Amino acid sequence: MSVLILGSIALDTVKTPVEEHSDLLGGSASYAAAAASYFAPVRLVGIVGSDFPQSEFDFWKSRKIDVDGVQRVNGKTFRWSGEYAWDMNTRETRSTDLNVFEKFEPKLPESYRETDFVLLANIAPSLQSHVLKQMKKLRFVVADTMNLWIETARKDLDALLPTVDLLILNDSEAREMTKETSLIKAGRGIRKMGPRYVAIKKGEHGALLFGEDEFFSCGAYPLEDIHDPTGAGDTFAGGMAGYLAGTIGGKVTFTDLRKAIIYGSVLASFCVEAFSLEKLRGLTMDQINERYEAFKMMSQFEVAE
Amino acid sequence: MSVLILGSIALDTVKTPVEEHSDLLGGSASYAAAAASYFAPVRLVGIVGSDFPQSEFDFWKSRKIDVDGVQRVNGKTFRWSGEYAWDMNTRETRSTDLNVFEKFEPKLPESYRETDFVLLANIAPSLQSHVLKQMKKLRFVVADTMNLWIETARKDLDALLPTVDLLILNDSEAREMTKETSLIKAGRGIRKMGPRYVAIKKGEHGALLFGEDEFFSCGAYPLEDIHDPTGAGDTFAGGMAGYLAGTIGGKVTFTDLRKAIIYGSVLASFCVEAFSLEKLRGLTMDQINERYEAFKMMSQFEVAE
Repeated sequence: MSVLILGSIALDTVKTPVEEHSDLLGGSASYAAAAASYFAPVRLVGIVGSDFPQSEFDFWKSRKIDVDGVQRVNGKTFRWSGEYAWDMNTRETRSTDLNVFEKFEPKLPESYRETDFVLLANIAPSLQSHVLKQMKKLRFVVADTMNLWIETARKDLDALLPTVDLLILNDSEAREMTKETSLIKAGRGIRKMGPRYVAIKKGEHGALLFGEDEFFSCGAYPLEDIHDPTGAGDTFAGGMAGYLAGTIGGKVTFTDLRKAIIYGSVLASFCVEAFSLEKLRGLTMDQINERYEAFKMMSQFEVAE
Repeated sequence: MSVLILGSIALDTVKTPVEEHSDLLGGSASYAAAAASYFAPVRLVGIVGSDFPQSEFDFWKSRKIDVDGVQRVNGKTFRWSGEYAWDMNTRETRSTDLNVFEKFEPKLPESYRETDFVLLANIAPSLQSHVLKQMKKLRFVVADTMNLWIETARKDLDALLPTVDLLILNDSEAREMTKETSLIKAGRGIRKMGPRYVAIKKGEHGALLFGEDEFFSCGAYPLEDIHDPTGAGDTFAGGMAGYLAGTIGGKVTFTDLRKAIIYGSVLASFCVEAFSLEKLRGLTMDQINERYEAFKMMSQFEVAE
């Protein structure tokens, strides 16, 4: 089954202690769509300006990503620029130019309205809700968010939460949202705000998943070098949603979500190994499955030698 | 088989945002011995003063912990006092009074010298080496350390490392020891300093284990409330070493170490649920095995529903 992905499409300029690259493909929907496309057909919703490279449309086409929902308007594409500290763990935003994104009002093509799986990638929660309302039937809704919306659009976010099946956010966001230091309390607390499931991303420490009486914890793939952490969280969300859409025929269970978290982590581990989406453009299922097996080996403790 | 455990025996005064308790049993060897005693007979090596309560010797006897190697001398027992910040993640040492510990020279009773498994719990690396030299045969040596020794006794620590099979340390210590931000690089780097295996404790984020070409990662047991984090790392080391000594007849394999890490994590999760060693004094194997099963449930992603 297909997965509809709404989010930002950007041209990013990223500086790490080692390299700097300008105007590379970025944005939450770009990362999520590329990741999801390895598992399911993607229906992309976003907006770009007249300066957006045709080559990226060609890339989307090559990955069977439907772009009927991508608005092309006059003006400049959304641009973001950031710089990572020497340890690659903290980053500073150098500039954010919303450009055409400022007046973005997502309107779904008729062909999109019956998509079973929806990923509301990181974007203003009012836009996330706006898209959900246009859907004719829904089976499973995944939403990602960020500190900006927790701080500036909390009311919109709170209104969205009960309509979401799985909320994905990172550790500091989970703590901020609940004012709890314990991630266990935070995860359980966010469930009470509406989402049936909550996934907390912890970067190098992996991820946690909370269900009603269920809990799952996984580590991160052991990478020695991170080249560009940008988009890792969006890729994680895209990998999860794509895996669910492409694999699960019936009701989504907690066990399905366990595997989805691993596939999300696998895709995120590839994402950070290169700048922008470079590594995500041309993966093979063999590469993905090999790393999935590596996750099994690194997390099982009752194994035959 | 038995496990010899060397380390500090202390009377701790601990203050958390909620409670304060004085002169409770503490010290690396106390925590480690209690944890290990659930899996194997323990031979304890340490020193106490004339003020040390007889009731703790009774406790050790009840747990089949051999105290022939515990020196009782005139003077005051080692005392440590610390205070935890509101988030229980950072702590400040309020005072350290070495007392009888200052002149501690561990001398093994003849009956201890052929113990197969040794845990050198956290203590000055020169004392750790001093004990190892008195052993007549060795099968598997586990050593724990701390930032103090990395900073003040690095030469002694470096001399110890090649004689150790498994080194246990926490994330900040691993980073400090290698000057690497990446824990993956740090773990692999420390292996090159001598130990065949390295375990990195990450508190709420679980633990990592590094072997030659092998890697294992596990999360922490999901606790909402931590009552007293003191001794969690010592308990983890004791649980690991005790499990290995009590269970492994032949050569210790990476798979054995995976399970040992889980048992160490299980014991540590009980440790932090109460002040001092209160929770570690009277666990049942059923409680331990139940939590071991919970670790399986929370870390497996290919499970039948």
